[in-house]
Amino acid sequence: MKKFTSVSDVSNLQQIIKKALEIKENPLLETDKGKGKTIGLVFLNSSLRTRLSSQIAAQNLGLNILTLNAAQEAWNLEFADGAVMNGDTVEHIKDAIEVLNQYCDIIAVRCFAGMKSKEDDVNESILSQFEQHAKVPVISLESATRHPLQSLADCITITENLGHFDKLSVNRKPKVVLTWAPHIKPIAHAVGNSFAEWMQEMDVEFVIANPEGYDLDKNFTKDVKVIHNQDEALKDADFIYVKNWSSFDDYAAMPEVKENWMLTNEKLTNTNQGKVMHCLPVRRNVELSDEVMDGENSIIYQQAKNRIFSAQAVFSEILDELNS
Amino acid sequence: MKKFTSVSDVSNLQQIIKKALEIKENPLLETDKGKGKTIGLVFLNSSLRTRLSSQIAAQNLGLNILTLNAAQEAWNLEFADGAVMNGDTVEHIKDAIEVLNQYCDIIAVRCFAGMKSKEDDVNESILSQFEQHAKVPVISLESATRHPLQSLADCITITENLGHFDKLSVNRKPKVVLTWAPHIKPIAHAVGNSFAEWMQEMDVEFVIANPEGYDLDKNFTKDVKVIHNQDEALKDADFIYVKNWSSFDDYAAMPEVKENWMLTNEKLTNTNQGKVMHCLPVRRNVELSDEVMDGENSIIYQQAKNRIFSAQAVFSEILDELNS
Amino acid sequence: MKKFTSVSDVSNLQQIIKKALEIKENPLLETDKGKGKTIGLVFLNSSLRTRLSSQIAAQNLGLNILTLNAAQEAWNLEFADGAVMNGDTVEHIKDAIEVLNQYCDIIAVRCFAGMKSKEDDVNESILSQFEQHAKVPVISLESATRHPLQSLADCITITENLGHFDKLSVNRKPKVVLTWAPHIKPIAHAVGNSFAEWMQEMDVEFVIANPEGYDLDKNFTKDVKVIHNQDEALKDADFIYVKNWSSFDDYAAMPEVKENWMLTNEKLTNTNQGKVMHCLPVRRNVELSDEVMDGENSIIYQQAKNRIFSAQAVFSEILDELNS
Repeated sequence: MKKFTSVSDVSNLQQIIKKALEIKENPLLETDKGKGKTIGLVFLNSSLRTRLSSQIAAQNLGLNILTLNAAQEAWNLEFADGAVMNGDTVEHIKDAIEVLNQYCDIIAVRCFAGMKSKEDDVNESILSQFEQHAKVPVISLESATRHPLQSLADCITITENLGHFDKLSVNRKPKVVLTWAPHIKPIAHAVGNSFAEWMQEMDVEFVIANPEGYDLDKNFTKDVKVIHNQDEALKDADFIYVKNWSSFDDYAAMPEVKENWMLTNEKLTNTNQGKVMHCLPVRRNVELSDEVMDGENSIIYQQAKNRIFSAQAVFSEILDELNS
Repeated sequence: MKKFTSVSDVSNLQQIIKKALEIKENPLLETDKGKGKTIGLVFLNSSLRTRLSSQIAAQNLGLNILTLNAAQEAWNLEFADGAVMNGDTVEHIKDAIEVLNQYCDIIAVRCFAGMKSKEDDVNESILSQFEQHAKVPVISLESATRHPLQSLADCITITENLGHFDKLSVNRKPKVVLTWAPHIKPIAHAVGNSFAEWMQEMDVEFVIANPEGYDLDKNFTKDVKVIHNQDEALKDADFIYVKNWSSFDDYAAMPEVKENWMLTNEKLTNTNQGKVMHCLPVRRNVELSDEVMDGENSIIYQQAKNRIFSAQAVFSEILDELNS
Repeated sequence: MKKFTSVSDVSNLQQIIKKALEIKENPLLETDKGKGKTIGLVFLNSSLRTRLSSQIAAQNLGLNILTLNAAQEAWNLEFADGAVMNGDTVEHIKDAIEVLNQYCDIIAVRCFAGMKSKEDDVNESILSQFEQHAKVPVISLESATRHPLQSLADCITITENLGHFDKLSVNRKPKVVLTWAPHIKPIAHAVGNSFAEWMQEMDVEFVIANPEGYDLDKNFTKDVKVIHNQDEALKDADFIYVKNWSSFDDYAAMPEVKENWMLTNEKLTNTNQGKVMHCLPVRRNVELSDEVMDGENSIIYQQAKNRIFSAQAVFSEILDELNS
């Protein structure tokens, strides 16, 4: 693997899921693989799970870790090419990346959508600079339009829970529903987009449920069925992935939604004892109810744990490339 | 030791002090004990000594360390059970803790008193959530009502300095005085409460000196003698522990104090060449004078150093439990 | 080496440059040298290169690392001797240093000029406290008046590029020009001062170019030729070091400059195919043009990389002293 910013960087999805599950069995399997190599973890945004799981994964592989909280610890960054830097920005992202090239064997970066300019976000105005200027492998820790380490963890988690359906002997593919959930402010599309992309690579029946006006970017959802009625979408669902996002068409707007899309236990009765997923952090009693979050259908913390093995499998494959 | 949030988690105080002093002699005695295990150091508040000493202790034991500056690096936390999270908070503390359960073998957390609601602070509104939801051992790095790693370091420091009194051949127990000191804003009770609790487990004569209106919570001081006259309390003191706290009864208020309670060299003349202690940070020339701080009676920096061995002894005992 | 805060701490400049270049060849040459020892990296200001290169250097030597972002993570510091601390400051720098003495074998600190009081800055009001109170070796990660780890990296980089001039068979010493560049706010003198000091120890012809009113402190530049005409200074230059600083005489003022001092490719035509240097971060199209930054004459990223070996050579020599 030469880089990891989307599902298209994965040559064999089932194989990397298998590898991640082997790592979960024995996290210290390859403790010397990263020895003498350095991964830079660059955070342009807040992070709990991504920060910690990436650190654990890197430690398990024996990598040296450089963590940079860019906003607080380093310099205010300029992103515009050709800018005359006579304002508030102190260092151009190009130069920061060139320096990281000198210091790191792998650069992992978190750079959220700004949610102001649709064009900037769709074009991955920040990640694209890393992809363009980095001379070492780049790993996305979530970018404007995708969150691939999360999606891989989601695939691992679904795979771990397939036994449930084998036992039910259902004569069909598992049904996975990505359902929009309410929120109080405009949220990015990265997790939704990314989950849609990865589900299209999994052997599942995948549908998306969201209110009118909230359809995700067709470049990610392609031919996936989009249903504007949550109850209809949830029917017989085996996995329900809860996530808010703002409008894509009317970028970052929040068109009024009359129905209550918060996931509740009542709504789950309509599903096939569906397992509930969420990438966290979650707004309790806004996106989903306490009873769902704390109920036995939730596999949300398992998802969080699998972030470690998702990251470790990816770092390991990147190291294979570097060591080859 | 299954957890460490107060003196009641210590089965044998003299034994753990002895262990800490052995570690001080040879800090790298158990460098492999924590191998393959991870301690999460979660800071909801500022920290210098606790941050650094905990890291050194963990490194000395071979533990992997995940440091999380929750306020700056992660998400704004919600603490209320059942909250409808439609405001500023992004992640519920319960969920953050569940994720830490997935990532860490030990969770250490610093969560100061808010000093707004007496009830919240007395009930340890934050630490109690860790105690309730953590599935791994919890270590307090100072909570609303206690600072036990500090208190253990204080016990170690007093023990190291007992020889002084042996030489004096005083035919009595060492006299330890916890004396209130002035400050400019309302300070929490944690260090005072905790020191009071631990001193009751030591073989010393312990008294507390504070102005009227500043008595600590009886749940911590129990039958300890409280004196409202500083000179009287300091008489023949062998150890003088200087610390400010605000009113407990009139919670977080600062009733006027007419006398000057700042510790000075002059006040020390009344003591038995008393050693001066403080947990740091200290407001010089407010809580105590420069001459005391920089004088030969101060064992304050020795106390700070012992924070390493206090933490390491506790981490080591927790690891004994995890490895058993 | 007992400490490292200026060029005067280096007994043999050519020898430490040679050592740094050996480390560059084999960074893991001395992986056990720092084992069991702890370096504290204390940041009172922002840092990208210094932060990362110091961490890599310390990791390469097997040192334990304690990183402290003092402003965000610890307590608001008091710097005035004898202060009655009844204001915003919570901990005296003296006490913080004494605690670092207890926890670290080496203290490295970044403490920029405040640019408010010339006297404070010239007297190194912060670094001097470290030099006075630290009981372990102190390393400057840039102080009010000097940036010696940068300057050593600059000497390493110039040395690496001397071959260029050997090939040209020029019958003279390499000409190094430190040229002032425009900026939008008052910048400290540390990099300029320091570079001037170190160049006086190198076997080069060294001149400084800056506008009238921008002469650096004579205590650093001594007898170095200062030219107020940039074109004249750049003539036949082999190395051009670009850096802004504010007025020293009229401290922190920015007297009007009529000519455009931004370094461009056109100005380079006047030089001897001069290599361009800058310590970074750089204001593109203000201090120098994009075409220079991204052009083939720039050795700026090489300089950044050499920060690792500069730090590692210094840490290694300090460890020699500690281990002796």
